[in-house]
Formats: sequence, C-alpha cells, structure tokens
Amino acid sequence: MDFSLIGYDPAGAWIKSASTVEELLSYKNSAGISWININGVEPSPDISRLAQAFRIHPLTVEDILDTKQRPKAEEFDDYLFVVLKSVSPGSLESAADEKEFNFEQISLVITRDTVISFQEKPGDYFDGIRKRILNNAGRIRRMGTDYLAWMIMDAVVDEYFVVFDALGAGIEEFEDRAIDQNDRDFIQDIQSIKRNLLRIRRVIWPLRESFAVLSRLESGFISKEVEPFLKDLQDNILRAGEAVETYRELIAGVMEVNLSAVSNRMNNIMKVLTIISTIFIPLTFIVGVYGMNFAHMPELQYPYAYPITWGIMVLIALGMLVYFKRRHWL
Amino acid sequence: MDFSLIGYDPAGAWIKSASTVEELLSYKNSAGISWININGVEPSPDISRLAQAFRIHPLTVEDILDTKQRPKAEEFDDYLFVVLKSVSPGSLESAADEKEFNFEQISLVITRDTVISFQEKPGDYFDGIRKRILNNAGRIRRMGTDYLAWMIMDAVVDEYFVVFDALGAGIEEFEDRAIDQNDRDFIQDIQSIKRNLLRIRRVIWPLRESFAVLSRLESGFISKEVEPFLKDLQDNILRAGEAVETYRELIAGVMEVNLSAVSNRMNNIMKVLTIISTIFIPLTFIVGVYGMNFAHMPELQYPYAYPITWGIMVLIALGMLVYFKRRHWL
Amino acid sequence: MDFSLIGYDPAGAWIKSASTVEELLSYKNSAGISWININGVEPSPDISRLAQAFRIHPLTVEDILDTKQRPKAEEFDDYLFVVLKSVSPGSLESAADEKEFNFEQISLVITRDTVISFQEKPGDYFDGIRKRILNNAGRIRRMGTDYLAWMIMDAVVDEYFVVFDALGAGIEEFEDRAIDQNDRDFIQDIQSIKRNLLRIRRVIWPLRESFAVLSRLESGFISKEVEPFLKDLQDNILRAGEAVETYRELIAGVMEVNLSAVSNRMNNIMKVLTIISTIFIPLTFIVGVYGMNFAHMPELQYPYAYPITWGIMVLIALGMLVYFKRRHWL
Amino acid sequence: MDFSLIGYDPAGAWIKSASTVEELLSYKNSAGISWININGVEPSPDISRLAQAFRIHPLTVEDILDTKQRPKAEEFDDYLFVVLKSVSPGSLESAADEKEFNFEQISLVITRDTVISFQEKPGDYFDGIRKRILNNAGRIRRMGTDYLAWMIMDAVVDEYFVVFDALGAGIEEFEDRAIDQNDRDFIQDIQSIKRNLLRIRRVIWPLRESFAVLSRLESGFISKEVEPFLKDLQDNILRAGEAVETYRELIAGVMEVNLSAVSNRMNNIMKVLTIISTIFIPLTFIVGVYGMNFAHMPELQYPYAYPITWGIMVLIALGMLVYFKRRHWL
Amino acid sequence: MDFSLIGYDPAGAWIKSASTVEELLSYKNSAGISWININGVEPSPDISRLAQAFRIHPLTVEDILDTKQRPKAEEFDDYLFVVLKSVSPGSLESAADEKEFNFEQISLVITRDTVISFQEKPGDYFDGIRKRILNNAGRIRRMGTDYLAWMIMDAVVDEYFVVFDALGAGIEEFEDRAIDQNDRDFIQDIQSIKRNLLRIRRVIWPLRESFAVLSRLESGFISKEVEPFLKDLQDNILRAGEAVETYRELIAGVMEVNLSAVSNRMNNIMKVLTIISTIFIPLTFIVGVYGMNFAHMPELQYPYAYPITWGIMVLIALGMLVYFKRRHWL
Repeated sequence: MDFSLIGYDPAGAWIKSASTVEELLSYKNSAGISWININGVEPSPDISRLAQAFRIHPLTVEDILDTKQRPKAEEFDDYLFVVLKSVSPGSLESAADEKEFNFEQISLVITRDTVISFQEKPGDYFDGIRKRILNNAGRIRRMGTDYLAWMIMDAVVDEYFVVFDALGAGIEEFEDRAIDQNDRDFIQDIQSIKRNLLRIRRVIWPLRESFAVLSRLESGFISKEVEPFLKDLQDNILRAGEAVETYRELIAGVMEVNLSAVSNRMNNIMKVLTIISTIFIPLTFIVGVYGMNFAHMPELQYPYAYPITWGIMVLIALGMLVYFKRRHWL
Repeated sequence: MDFSLIGYDPAGAWIKSASTVEELLSYKNSAGISWININGVEPSPDISRLAQAFRIHPLTVEDILDTKQRPKAEEFDDYLFVVLKSVSPGSLESAADEKEFNFEQISLVITRDTVISFQEKPGDYFDGIRKRILNNAGRIRRMGTDYLAWMIMDAVVDEYFVVFDALGAGIEEFEDRAIDQNDRDFIQDIQSIKRNLLRIRRVIWPLRESFAVLSRLESGFISKEVEPFLKDLQDNILRAGEAVETYRELIAGVMEVNLSAVSNRMNNIMKVLTIISTIFIPLTFIVGVYGMNFAHMPELQYPYAYPITWGIMVLIALGMLVYFKRRHWL
Repeated sequence: MDFSLIGYDPAGAWIKSASTVEELLSYKNSAGISWININGVEPSPDISRLAQAFRIHPLTVEDILDTKQRPKAEEFDDYLFVVLKSVSPGSLESAADEKEFNFEQISLVITRDTVISFQEKPGDYFDGIRKRILNNAGRIRRMGTDYLAWMIMDAVVDEYFVVFDALGAGIEEFEDRAIDQNDRDFIQDIQSIKRNLLRIRRVIWPLRESFAVLSRLESGFISKEVEPFLKDLQDNILRAGEAVETYRELIAGVMEVNLSAVSNRMNNIMKVLTIISTIFIPLTFIVGVYGMNFAHMPELQYPYAYPITWGIMVLIALGMLVYFKRRHWL
Repeated sequence: MDFSLIGYDPAGAWIKSASTVEELLSYKNSAGISWININGVEPSPDISRLAQAFRIHPLTVEDILDTKQRPKAEEFDDYLFVVLKSVSPGSLESAADEKEFNFEQISLVITRDTVISFQEKPGDYFDGIRKRILNNAGRIRRMGTDYLAWMIMDAVVDEYFVVFDALGAGIEEFEDRAIDQNDRDFIQDIQSIKRNLLRIRRVIWPLRESFAVLSRLESGFISKEVEPFLKDLQDNILRAGEAVETYRELIAGVMEVNLSAVSNRMNNIMKVLTIISTIFIPLTFIVGVYGMNFAHMPELQYPYAYPITWGIMVLIALGMLVYFKRRHWL
Repeated sequence: MDFSLIGYDPAGAWIKSASTVEELLSYKNSAGISWININGVEPSPDISRLAQAFRIHPLTVEDILDTKQRPKAEEFDDYLFVVLKSVSPGSLESAADEKEFNFEQISLVITRDTVISFQEKPGDYFDGIRKRILNNAGRIRRMGTDYLAWMIMDAVVDEYFVVFDALGAGIEEFEDRAIDQNDRDFIQDIQSIKRNLLRIRRVIWPLRESFAVLSRLESGFISKEVEPFLKDLQDNILRAGEAVETYRELIAGVMEVNLSAVSNRMNNIMKVLTIISTIFIPLTFIVGVYGMNFAHMPELQYPYAYPITWGIMVLIALGMLVYFKRRHWL
C-alpha cells in the first residue's frame, strides 16, 4: 500500500508522499482541498486509521477492500462513496492473457474538503489530473472536491472509449477472418471478445444509475456549478453503454457471416463431390458392363464397339455437365 | 470554417456572409431573429469568441467540437443546446463507400433572439429553410427562434425518411437476392445494411428522449404556439424509430429466406447424388460379379445370360426410381 | 373527394349528401350532433375551407393528408384529433396482392357537436353505425360526439379481429405445409405473413397509448358516461396486441417445425445413401479382386470358389444390415 | 343456463336451486351473503333481468357473454367486475384433443352482499368452497363477499398449479424423447406444448395487473381484513407467471438437445459413410488396375504378385484405420 | 421438528434447547433479543401454538409450511415476514444428483424482540452467526432484531456467491469440453447447468424487490442504523442477479463454440470423403475402360500403354491435389 497527497487552493498546490497514515494526515491539516491517493487495497491497520480519521462507515471499508464490488454511488452523513471500475486493453507483459482486458476497482470517498481515491493496482491513470492541478490548468484550483471527483470519474470513463477504439479495430479484423476457412481459433477469439464485452457491460451498466443518483442528491456535496459536468458524464456513460450494445450486435453479425461462410463452403464441397460422382459413376458402370466375361456378348465383337462406347460415354458426361450448368452448379 | 448569418423580422429578411466572428456579430446587432450557420467545426479562436459573445458553457463548446456526441437536448441559463445527427444515403464520389451512409453532427444553440447551427460538413440541408425565410413563405417570419429551431430539426428528421425510402427499396431487392445461389456478396451486403441500421438507430433513439425533454421545459424558450410542432416532431421520430425496428425485422426475415434457400439447395444436391449413387452402385456390383475370372462360373456360359443380366439391372433401376418417386425425391 | 353528413338528435336523424363544403356546412347549422364523413383525402381547397370552418390546426390538416401517419390521439383547444388505421384482409380484385393486407388511414376530428371522419379510400366500414343512427338502435341518439367517436373507433378495432380470424386459419394451414417437402413457396409465404404481422403491430401498438391518452384527458370532450366504453376499447386493443404477439410466436413455431422437417429429410437421404454405399462398396471390391488378371491366383481354379464368394458377400451384406438395424437406421 | 344460490350468515347456510331469475331473486331477499352461480353463459332474457336487478352495466353484460375476454378487474359504481380464465389439462372424452388444454372463462360480479359467478361450462370447480360454507369450515361464514370472491379466485389460480404439475411431468418425458431418433411426432408435440404455454401465459399475464388493481381500490369493496389474502393471491399469480416462463425456457432447452442429437446423428452417419468409402475406394482402384487387359503388364506374370497386392491393400486399409483412430473418428 | 433458542443482550448470551413450544416460550421470557430457530417445517400443533404466541397470521403460517413459496417480504401489524431460498452446490451423499443444486426455503418472522427462523432441512448455515453472538464479536449484541435478521439474510446471500464460484469453475471446464468430439453427455450437462441457473434466477430475482420493500418500510421494524446494511444486501443481490445473467450468456457462448466445432468437424469429414472420392473415382473409371473385353481395342496391344496409363493417372491425381490445395482444402 502506498500513499500520496496532493493539496491545493486557488493560490498554490503541493504534493506529499507519506509512509504512515499519521504523516499523511499531518499534511492534510491545511486549508484548501486535499486529494489522497492510495495504491493497492488490502486489509491493514492503515486503512482502519484512515477510516477512523474520516469517519468512514465499516460497510464502506468493506466495499473498498472487496474488489468484486458492483459500481455504485452512495451517500453517507459525512461523505459520498463512489465505486467504479477502470478498464485497460490487456496486460502487455504476458502474451497469453493478451486478449483479456484488465479491470481495476477504483473507490472514491468524497468529503467536503478531501477526496480519497483507492486504486486496486498501482497505475498512472490520474497523472493527467495531477499535472492540471500543479500547472493550474483550467478551473480545477478554484473548484471544490466535487469537481476533482468529477475529473477522476471522467478520466476513468474516457478510458472506456480508448478500449472501445481497440475493440472496434479488432471487430473489423474479425469481419475479414469470418470468411477465412482455415481460421481454427476464430470462434474462440470471438468468444473471448464476447466475454470481455459482457464484463465491460457489467461495469458500465450500473454506472448509469450511479451517476443519476449523484445528480439527484440534495445533500450539498455536489455544487450547482458542477452539475452540468455530471450531466455530461452521464451522457458519456450512456454513449459507452450504447457502444457496448453495438459491439455485441456487430459480433453477432460477424458470427452470422462466419456461419454463412461455413455453410457455403460445405455446399461447394458437396457440389464438387456430387459433380465428380454423378459424372463418373454411370461411366464406370458402362465400362463394367463390357468387362463382364459372358461367353455370348455380341457387342464385344463389333469392330467399332469400342469407339462407339467412348462416344456414348462422352455424350453422357457432356449431358451431365449441361444439366449442372442449367442448375447453376458450375 | 465558414460563417453566414440570416436576419429577419416580420417586415424583411437579409443574408450576410462574414469572414470573422466580429464582423458576424456586427451584423447581428439588429432587431429581429438571427440565424448564424457555421460549416465545419474545429477548435479555433473564432469558436471561443463566439462562445464568449453568447455566453456558451465550455462543456457545450466541447460537445460541439466532438463530433462523436450522442444526440441530446440540454437547457442552460441562456440557451437551449440540441445535438442531432443527419443521415444521407452514402457519398456519391467514391463507389467503394457507396454502401455506407453518411452521418453528420448538427448542433444548435438556441437563445431568445438567435439560433446558431453548427454543421460538421458543408452542405445544403437548410437551403429550403433559407428560401422560406427570404420568400416570407408560411409563418416563419412572424415566429421566434423556437420555430426556426423546429424547422431545422424537422428538416433533419425528414431526411431520415428519404434514407428509409432508399433502404426499403434496397431490402426488397435483397429479398430477390436471398434465393439466388451465386450471390457471393449477399451476406456481406446484408451485414453492411445491418451496420447502417445499427448506426441510424443510435442517432434516432436518443432523440425520442431529447424532444420529450424540449417539450417538458418550463423555461420559456419554447412558446406555447410552437408546442404542437414539437409534438409533431416527436411523433415523427417515434415513427422513424419504428421504421428502423421494422427494417431490422425485415432483414432478419431476408436472412431466414436465404438460410432456407441454402438448406434447400443442399438438400437438392444431396438428392441428386443419392439417386445417381443408389441406382448405379448396385448395378456396378452386378457387372463386377460377371467380370470375375473364376474358372467355374456356370452363368457365363448360358447363351441368354447377358440379356437376362441387363433385364435384371433395368428392373433394379426402375425399382429404385419407383422407390424415390414414392418418397417424393423426384 | 366525396362528402356526406348525418345529423341526429334524440328526436330524429337525417342524411345529406353535398358536393361543396359550403353546402355541407349549411346542412350542419342545425341542433344536435353532426357526423361529416369524407372519402379520399387529398390536398384541395375544400379541405382548407373545412379546416377554417372548424378551426383545425395546420398540423392536423397535414396529418390528415399524409396517409403514412402513426396512430395517435391529440388534444387541441377546439377538438380532439385521432388517427387510426383500419386493416382488411387483402384486395379481392388482383390475385397477386392477395397475400398483402390493406391498410387504410382513418382520421377523426371530434368537436363538441361534430365528428369529422376522413377515410383514405371509399368504403363501407361505417354502414353499420349509420343504420344504428337512422334506426335509433341502442343509445346512440341520446349520446354526444364522444359516443359516436367511440362507435367509429370500435368498428375499426373490431375489424382487426376479423383479420385475425383469417390469419389464425392461415397459420393452421401453414402448420401442415411446414412438413411437406415439395412446398417451394412455403418460406416466402411465411415471410409474407410475418411482414403483414409487422405492419399490423405497427398500427396496433401506438393505439394502446392513444386510447390511454383519451381516457386521461380532463378537457370535457369525453363524458363520464362514455369512459367505460373507452376502457373497453383499451381492453380490446390490448387483446389485439397480444394476439399479434401470439401469432408471431406461432409463426416462429411453424418455422421450427419446417427446419426440423428439412433436417429430418436430409438425415433420411443421407441414411439411404450410406446404407446402399456401405453395403455395396465392400462387395464391389471383392468382385474386383477376382476380376484381376494375375497369372497366379489359386482361388480362381477352386471349383466352389464362385459360390463361396457369393456366400461371403451375402454374409457381409447381412452383417451390415444387422449393424444398421442395431443403430436404428432401418 | 342453470342457476343456483347459496346464502349464508354467521348463523347458518342454505342452498337453493331456481329455474327462473325471479325465483332466484326471491331467495336472495334475505339477510347475509348470497352467492349466485350461473353455468353456461348465453344471451337470454334471464341475463338481462339479472343485470337489471343488480344494476350491471351493459358493457359488463357484453363482457360476460363474450368468452374471448381478456382477464381483467374493473370497478363500477355498484360492483366490482372480475374476468379470469380457468385451465384444466385437456378433455378426457376425446383422445385426439388430449394434448390441448381446456380454457374456461369465469366472470365475477361482486356487490356488497352478493357474488354472482358466471361459468362458461358446467363444472365442479367450486364444490370445495360450497362445502366449506355449508360445513362452516374456517372463517368463511363470518366474512363478506370480498372473502368469498377471494376463495373463488384462489380456487381458479390453484388449478393452474395442478396443470403445471402435469406440464412439468410432460417436459421431463420430452427430455428423454429429445435424443430418441425415431420419434417422428416429437417436434409437433413440442409445438403443441408451446402453444398451450402461450395460451396459459395469455390468461395469467393480465391477472397480475388485475389483482394489483383490486388491492389498490379505495372503494370499500375490499375490506382491510381481506387485503393480505389478496396479496397472497398476487404472489401466487406471480409464481404462476414465472413457472410459465421457466417451462418455456425448459422447452427451448429440450429443442436444443434435440437439435444437437440430430446433428450428432448426422455426423455419425457421415463418419460411417466416409470410413467405408475412403477405405474401399482406393482398394477398388487397385484391383481395377490388375483387371486391365493390356497385353504388356509385367506384374501380372510375377508368381507372388497376387499375395503382394493383398499385402499392400491390407496395409492401406490399416493405414486408413490408424488415421481415423488418430482423428478420433472411431 | 427441532427447536433451539439463543437469547442475548449487551451483557451476555445463552443457548437453550427445548422439546416443546411451552418450554421454549418459558426461556424466551427474559429481557434482550431472542432468536428461535426451527429445523424442518411440517404442519403440527407446535407450529400452531407458536403462531398463537407470536400472533402470526394464518396466511404466514401457510407460507412457512408450503416450501414452494416465492421469495418475498411482507409487513404485518406485529412482525415482518421474509421468505428466502438458500442454495448449496448439490448433495454429497448420492453421486447421481450431484449436478442438481439443493434449494432450501428459509422463513423469517421478525418481531421487535424475537427473530424466528424456519429452516426446511436441518443444516449449519447459521453456525457462524451463533458463534458471533456467543463470542460477542462485532456489534451484534448491541443491536436489535433487525440486525440479527440482516445477518441471517446476509449469510444466505453470501452462500449464493459460493455456488457461483463452483459454477464459474464448471463453465470454464465446459469451454474445453465444447470442442471435444467424443463428449456425448456434453449437451445434457449443459442443459443441467441451465436448469440450475433458471432455478437460481427464480430465487434471486424476487429478492431484489423484497429487500427494496424492506428498506422502504416506515413501520419502525428496521432502525436507521441498520439501513446501510440492508442497502449493502440489496447491492449484493443485484450483483448475484447480474452474475446469473452473465453465466447464462457464457453458457450460450459455450453452446455456440460447440455448434461451431460440430460443424467444423462435419466439414472436415466431408472434405476427406470428397478428396478421396474425387481422386479415385476418375482413376477407377480409367482402369475400368481397359478392363473391357472388346475384341478391337488397339491401345491394349501398344507395348507402353500400361506405363502411359499409369502416367496419366498420376497426372490426374496430382492435378486434383493441386486443385484442392488451391481451394485450401488441404
């Protein structure tokens, strides 16, 4: 577990790194807004002391520590509690898991003067926000914790669209693979995409409701000035949800193309077999007839019997070919 | 980026073209209603100056510039903001993209005396409205910005039905192609239509809600006189949504016909193969029998053995044919 | 375009036919309830004069003239406006279109003393209602325009169930056709039914909401006495909607039966082919062996080789048959 | 049509059978609760007199007589009107219809002192209730018409679960039939079950809403004491609705098993054909080679050519078998 | 039936086992909170006496005894009544039922000072809670019956996730089995999983609503302090519901993989058959030609005819192989 604190007010901003909660809290005792970021959540006395300092409900602590939480937003007496999940397009280290997306739980405790963010794994999601605070870019230093919380949530939601761009490119590639007949892993890769979409849907869907909950609150944690930003976030999450549904339908379409391609291929194989068989089976019968050893087979003695037989066989073969042509099999 | 301004009041109407925002704003300072149209949205100082002049919220500016927005309607203190998407049936220039529809984002900022419309690409969607204003056709000159905004939105929605007529004709053509067996591109063309429908659905669906939002507003931007027109627009968008769903079901029906046709064809191929094989395989066996070289095969010496064998083979073939007839295979 | 007017009050009823709107309106200027019926809607000065006389909103006129309207109910200051669609089971004149249902738009303008009905095509839907008025059957003459409007809407909705009876009979017939193997038009006829159901659904679905709108109005157009009748109409339209969904599921069931029948047939064809092939292919090999011309083939000289070979072949064939019997292929 | 009346108060209970409505009504003029049961509904003067006596609305009479009604609950000034459908598991008389369930419409008119029940067909559904009244079992005699109505509705809903038990047993049997390959009627029996489920759903679904309507009424027809019973009924109908959905999914699962079994069978047939063909076709070619009559074929004269040929053929056959074994076809 | 009682207050806790209801009730007459647990529900005088003592409504008693109840929460004058279902992953005793999950109905009657829990079968679900009470772990001894009821419900819901872990592992195993061609029980095992999921869904779905009902109550049974815990339970049940839906989709994906694998296998079988057949059928025809016994067949006498024939046949075979290579069949 690893702590960092950013403090800021309209006049300035400072970063502090701490090794104990007490040190961290000592930095906090200043005017302005504080942002405490905690990497790696695990049960520890530090978490308990932090919870005590900010009067965090035991259930909230439990939710922060359990990384299988459902995204949600809850209002407590002293803070807002938001759980959301960030998605990134697969770990770069191991090739085996490459196709699986990475999901990380991010919990926010938003009090009137402090935002505490809990990240499941260390990462650099929020570097952009840190820079904006330190460089005094935009309005961030003049705003409260609600705006900071919005920036964090917005960064997470924006990341979804980065993942979607990767997905979109992947699906276009699948459309080509769908008609390729030697692609043995196709169906399993498709299923892997579908599983990823299912998981993304599970982290996006509840957010629609959570953000709606946030904007409906009348507790004063969200100022009127930040409301349009929250509205915008809601629009983005709706857009993300629709994108997921669209990808699911596109994948279903790719499956249809593949099914149709497989079935066409089967048809073609059957056609070749049928054409070859139906042409040669009757001919083989004819040559079999004149291979019989009956003592009395008058045709065998006719001088032109052999070329005539050939002629008949060629006619039969041509007749078959014309028939297949007519039925559009050739 | 390219600016134009139409001003009008019950007495008259005038068109102005401007190269800078300042020039544009100078034209605006007149009585009556102003309609500013901007072709091609991209971040530029002009946009910022315009935003400042009309007190447009930074989030609105961001939404105008991001052409991947979801259609929506929002109320701000000084204006209504509407995002919608126009659809046109594919670019005429390049044959390759012919099958893909063109989507363009259109943003409207509606203040009490000005409508600002932002078009993603230059186009002539709104020529009809311009002419109506200049020719004083209908009631347009006597109405406010709400009526003008309605006319613009109505023009966009009417365009959907033009696209639907093209789609409807296309689907009828697909119904014929569905039973044609040499149509290799069929399944991919179907998928292209489905993708287009998915995209149209995504631009239509949110409009239902947006227009409902507009008519529920109590801010005074929409006058009581324009309300029935907005209601009508809502009906049209519902109709458009239902049309999309109907096309999706029709496409699914076309796929079913195709699947059934492919399966029937397979059946027919198998039937031909089976009929030819089952008739000739036993006959070939018989002629094989009398092709054996055993020293002691009494039949070989019978004078009528050969014609009798032929007779038996003809009987077997006829028997087979009768059997197939009975099973309705012929 | 063709006008007729029925006037009635508790004391009497009279029918007038008019060639101009002015003549029509002159008949109207009497006490009691008037019902104006107009066959064939097209833009004309007559419509405009009528609209002016009854203070009909331009948008309503537009909706009446556009026969692609979505069913709806709207309240205006001076009247209620209802659009609905009647369905009849296909034109009798041309055999080609026989399978397509006929849809006709019927618009009602309901003022406090007049009902104006607009029919897309001339027809005799409302003859029954006319007779009830003239014969003073039931309560009609004692009631207001709301009751008359209900009778008209009820007549249209009742017609749906006539169409459903035809559909139900048709679907039963399809259940028989689904297992017939020579029915080439089956899949296309099914699709035609499905298209019709889609279209019916589109005209029924919005009515549920429309009728609910009518009963929720507090404008005084609908009297308390007529409310139960409207409630009944709502029940009927719900029933109609459920019937459509049921027919769609039945059609899906018929498709499943057909798919299963096709697949069974394929199985049977494959079985016959496989049985014949697997019996005769080994036998043909055996007879081929003794057709070889090797100088040294001792079996050929054995006196009983030929009947022994026959015996072996019969045993192989019987073994195969037993095997197929065991696998339930025969 | 056949009338009966049960009257009861806390002190006693009596049954009367009447041949005319007048006689029936004379029995009714007593203190306490009356329950009038009418078997077989058809338009008749009796119905009209009854309607007049209890001030039943003409629309209610129409609904009672039309046995195609949708289940519903309606409140009128003088009574509650409830339509529901009972289901029984098929007529015992004719074996042909055995698979089709019997649906019967039951209408209840509930006034403050009388319940009138209309049964479509004579039956003994309500014998249990009659006995409870006569034997003074439970609380029935101390309660009002609302409790009696609940008992009747509860008896009808309980009957659904009897039907479900039969259905559940039937579906288990189908699971065995799904993998049986000679079951030609399977698909049609499945469709018959599906049709029954569709019909049951249509009679259950609207009841959820109807019972909710009843408990939301504030008219005093339903006493506070009976409310928990109505709540219980609502739970039962929800449970019934869920059971229907579960059966539909189970049937879909049975179809999947069947599809998979058919496809496995096809695979097996193809495997046998392919194994036999691919082993013997090359061998038949080899024996054909040495059946040729060329004057110069050196092999034919070698003394060991024949056994060597046999050896080669055995090797080829073994090689093929090993290949099939490797591909898991054997 | 078997009774036990745990009593506790902030100062202490005690367990009592009783053989009669009277004895049980005598233990109860103490200060603090009582928890009565009853294993095995069946109609008996004990249940009646208990119901009388706690003034439990006859309908509640009926619901407790009927183990086919739908999960629900109801408020009565003197108590809350909650029905829920616990799930465990199959009986360990008999291997045959191993695949079916065990469902058990648990009913809770929550009064102000007593919780009565009814378990369908004896079990040790609640041992953890008992220990917490006796060891005074956490806040349990300081809280009321609402907190105890929450602990019981939470224990049941937590058990769902244990079952889900087993399910998740099972589905991963299915993904491997889906492409295995000799897995005859695959489809039936899948159906068994689906049936289990259907049943779990039926017990989870209604809980969402039940818990919402509990938190909306204003009767004072649920204290403000326990509300966040109930909220957390609601989140868990939502998560459980989503997990079920996800498993259903994963199972559908596994079916798709299986279908695709079966179809690929069929394709491969057909390919092998077609390749062997189309190569050897023409060659067999050629050797048949020179097996004919015509008196005049000049080729037969050419000295190099035999090797030339071989050459032609090799060329044909190679040509075929090249053709198949080009079509990617090899």
